[in-house]
Amino acid sequence: MQEIISIKTHGRSTIDITHEVEKLVARSRIEIGLCNLFIQHTSASLILCENADPDVRSDLESFMQQIVKDGDPLFMHTAEGSDDMPAHIRNVLTSSSLTIPIANGRCLLGTWQGIYLWEHRVNSHVRNIIVSIQRD
Amino acid sequence: MQEIISIKTHGRSTIDITHEVEKLVARSRIEIGLCNLFIQHTSASLILCENADPDVRSDLESFMQQIVKDGDPLFMHTAEGSDDMPAHIRNVLTSSSLTIPIANGRCLLGTWQGIYLWEHRVNSHVRNIIVSIQRD
Amino acid sequence: MQEIISIKTHGRSTIDITHEVEKLVARSRIEIGLCNLFIQHTSASLILCENADPDVRSDLESFMQQIVKDGDPLFMHTAEGSDDMPAHIRNVLTSSSLTIPIANGRCLLGTWQGIYLWEHRVNSHVRNIIVSIQRD
Repeated sequence: MQEIISIKTHGRSTIDITHEVEKLVARSRIEIGLCNLFIQHTSASLILCENADPDVRSDLESFMQQIVKDGDPLFMHTAEGSDDMPAHIRNVLTSSSLTIPIANGRCLLGTWQGIYLWEHRVNSHVRNIIVSIQRD
Repeated sequence: MQEIISIKTHGRSTIDITHEVEKLVARSRIEIGLCNLFIQHTSASLILCENADPDVRSDLESFMQQIVKDGDPLFMHTAEGSDDMPAHIRNVLTSSSLTIPIANGRCLLGTWQGIYLWEHRVNSHVRNIIVSIQRD
Repeated sequence: MQEIISIKTHGRSTIDITHEVEKLVARSRIEIGLCNLFIQHTSASLILCENADPDVRSDLESFMQQIVKDGDPLFMHTAEGSDDMPAHIRNVLTSSSLTIPIANGRCLLGTWQGIYLWEHRVNSHVRNIIVSIQRD
């Protein structure tokens, strides 16, 4: 089973997509298997992150801004804005693809794991995630 | 085939789990396929790393401590200790999931590749890794 | 289907392997499924990156050199050269394995996504990538 989740982002931030993914897994009626998520963009990522305290994702964003500086004079690729090259780097330092096991018809996430789309650009974008669900 | 490996860690360090994974691959009797490893935690990672010189993993740890500083005043999420937010960041910068091809009933690792669990917290924890083995 | 792509690199740089991967996907005649790429080395990576402006990959390289410094006195593992330990770190900060969905007999990449081998050593090497293609 292969489906697309389209998410409209609102600038740099993380968006919890765990529920959208779980809905597709439930609809597939696959009890045991694997769920692969793939984001079709080079300036937004997929991450697994702590899902209880929003400060965690806020600190993650602060850290990334400190380590990959917007408008760093090091960068030559600046035509699309001072956040564009940093977005590509943030993408490479995180993930474009996640593979999560399924058991009992649900993603086998740990208690504190949520699935997040991380928009790295400062403007809004529509981001497509391909969800592939395989029976074991 | 889906199994769980539970590993007790002893504070911040890498633990070689190649042998545990290979045992499960052998037991599955699958000759050609894929082995997916998934860690159900947000402050420990799975990595592939050079397996010959222990200095490599020690240097990797030194590098991570330099780049993601324990107790950095940047962080708001501090309730669970000065190593907790760094552990979440280290997790996002590395991997929660690895997919390794299988051939001749073994993981198709390169000569110098080992599979490691990387505990990012300073205290001991029990970490669960889901191992999913698929026939091609 | 499981095949090997062998690529000769020419020192530190990124090499576009999208075409080689697409050729194997086409040859498999699998219309819908998943393609897993796995690099058997600990000092070269697989990444998805913007495929239009070569400055992006050049900036990515500059960023990595700034953050993981060759010859950093922090490192103990120096016997194989001042770029060897940085190469292992760059490998851990990026990816050894990518899983890409297939639809209509092609990798479901976004418009701006290319698949790149990233050589992290300054000398030439032959790098093996295992390509596993699964039908859904």
